[in-house]
Amino acid sequence: MTTQVIVLNGGSSSGKSGIARCLQAVLPGPWLALSIDTLVEAMPVSMQASGTGIEFAADGGVSVGPGFRSLQKAWQAGIAEMVRAGARVIIDDVFLGGASTQGDWRRALAGLDVLWVGVRCDVKVAEGREIARGDRVRGMAASQAEPVHQGVAYDLEVDTTHTEALACALAIAAKVD
Amino acid sequence: MTTQVIVLNGGSSSGKSGIARCLQAVLPGPWLALSIDTLVEAMPVSMQASGTGIEFAADGGVSVGPGFRSLQKAWQAGIAEMVRAGARVIIDDVFLGGASTQGDWRRALAGLDVLWVGVRCDVKVAEGREIARGDRVRGMAASQAEPVHQGVAYDLEVDTTHTEALACALAIAAKVD
Amino acid sequence: MTTQVIVLNGGSSSGKSGIARCLQAVLPGPWLALSIDTLVEAMPVSMQASGTGIEFAADGGVSVGPGFRSLQKAWQAGIAEMVRAGARVIIDDVFLGGASTQGDWRRALAGLDVLWVGVRCDVKVAEGREIARGDRVRGMAASQAEPVHQGVAYDLEVDTTHTEALACALAIAAKVD
Amino acid sequence: MTTQVIVLNGGSSSGKSGIARCLQAVLPGPWLALSIDTLVEAMPVSMQASGTGIEFAADGGVSVGPGFRSLQKAWQAGIAEMVRAGARVIIDDVFLGGASTQGDWRRALAGLDVLWVGVRCDVKVAEGREIARGDRVRGMAASQAEPVHQGVAYDLEVDTTHTEALACALAIAAKVD
Repeated sequence: MTTQVIVLNGGSSSGKSGIARCLQAVLPGPWLALSIDTLVEAMPVSMQASGTGIEFAADGGVSVGPGFRSLQKAWQAGIAEMVRAGARVIIDDVFLGGASTQGDWRRALAGLDVLWVGVRCDVKVAEGREIARGDRVRGMAASQAEPVHQGVAYDLEVDTTHTEALACALAIAAKVD
Repeated sequence: MTTQVIVLNGGSSSGKSGIARCLQAVLPGPWLALSIDTLVEAMPVSMQASGTGIEFAADGGVSVGPGFRSLQKAWQAGIAEMVRAGARVIIDDVFLGGASTQGDWRRALAGLDVLWVGVRCDVKVAEGREIARGDRVRGMAASQAEPVHQGVAYDLEVDTTHTEALACALAIAAKVD
Repeated sequence: MTTQVIVLNGGSSSGKSGIARCLQAVLPGPWLALSIDTLVEAMPVSMQASGTGIEFAADGGVSVGPGFRSLQKAWQAGIAEMVRAGARVIIDDVFLGGASTQGDWRRALAGLDVLWVGVRCDVKVAEGREIARGDRVRGMAASQAEPVHQGVAYDLEVDTTHTEALACALAIAAKVD
Repeated sequence: MTTQVIVLNGGSSSGKSGIARCLQAVLPGPWLALSIDTLVEAMPVSMQASGTGIEFAADGGVSVGPGFRSLQKAWQAGIAEMVRAGARVIIDDVFLGGASTQGDWRRALAGLDVLWVGVRCDVKVAEGREIARGDRVRGMAASQAEPVHQGVAYDLEVDTTHTEALACALAIAAKVD
């Protein structure tokens, strides 16, 4: 069977998007890379600061309302359809709901060949990278590092603490059929 | 019937994305805004300079290869599915193939209630705005202004030459059921 | 005498940076364009949310603390020195203190040939453009439109309400010696 | 004596800007961070593709013309003046001319207390990070890694190959008076 979808799950600043770009560079054939940030940017600006959308608290906490969840389900269904229509897709996500978010993706991606990848990073290191990038609310890395992996099952886990994004991508690519 | 999709078609620097953001602000309920730029950014960097992807020539010409077209079809199918799954979507596109691109979208969006909007702008004005924004290859506005509308049928046309994005958005919103 | 500095002053979303890029395209010889945004981006992230730096309130109000003002004075002195060292510079600023900010610039630019340009825009139009660009806090355009011009003297004023950035730039360029 | 300027020199993708942001976070008091990218962005778009400005070749080579060098000297003089006017500044640069570029900075910064820092990174690792970030021409990291350090004297060298940006910043901060 041929791998059709690669799902990268990890906390903020764990290095997912760098791995996604490296995967696009090392995998044979074109893969689309779509992330939770793509979805957030597609939403109305107003949803980013209201109870119905997504909120980034000053301490790095992220909460999403019913409006966000409903658009997210449609987004997941749409990405699954892109795959059924022939595109191979790398999904770069933050499972804010842990196992429950994985359940949502499982339902959306039913019947497709998915490689589930956990992207881990020592929380102190992720916090340092959050400072170095300078474009994220301080505290997101710390508050997401553990909860996003709770109860989630993976085919493969990588850890960016001491391993470069390209090396992680090569390890993942070795599991792609 | 309820409008589910708004398709904005126009050349580079005609003002589509500004109208899309204004529509998100004035329409009741949340609408996702997805553009051809979203798709290009999701592609591998390497496709942006190869015969199979999309190429931006020094004179502003844009050409796409078979790899691009194939991902684009999957992208179109996926957006249609997002709508079927309940999201309302504003599509901001450049019909490089004119009527033929509209045909592709019609097939993908079959059965959905679509509002087709042409976004026009005097070519001299669009060229000036291309200089003012500074992030587009010079010449794209001029080379796309006319061809993208060739043979395309609209429910409504707006012209940003003398009309602000917000006013265009209000005119479009008045046609949304 | 030869114009060495062009200062563009106007409220948020009045169109200053588009005019600056058009000036760079139409003026003979290279001009550097430096804006208040360049300075803010050079500051520590932490200053953007503390009493000593710059704060963007939810209603669009902007307040700056003593730490900001002190770095701003050094910034102004430095830009003046770039000009004395031979660079021609377009400064794109928001005179939050009106005449008092102009006084600061006058002292910094003493002895240089400066063209002072006011960039105006009808407040309703600027508010619409603020929505269309989507990357500014709502309300900045409205709260800055008038105060930034209070007591400020210009060599030339342009109004982007009905005039494109390129046409404004050409009018300014005609005054550059 | 009090350190007034920190100069970070290293090739593309060696990690300079991440270190600069971490320095801003860990050093007491506000420091401005200005990079060669800030200068390039301030230049006319046209200079980025002409013989007089800066050119990024398809293989990652970077060449600068006389127009670039002349604006760069003015830029260096201006930054030195910002420091004399009281700002503390982190300069993040790529010494394309090696020792000769350091000589230019020495002349500009004469009389100021400067901490010279070399930022190194194993070339294979830097190449991988260039792929991971996705916004740089492939090959820049490799072609700049060694030449930018040729004949340059440092107070301190850091190596990002196995050390995080934050840890490098703490090592540098320990040398700041």
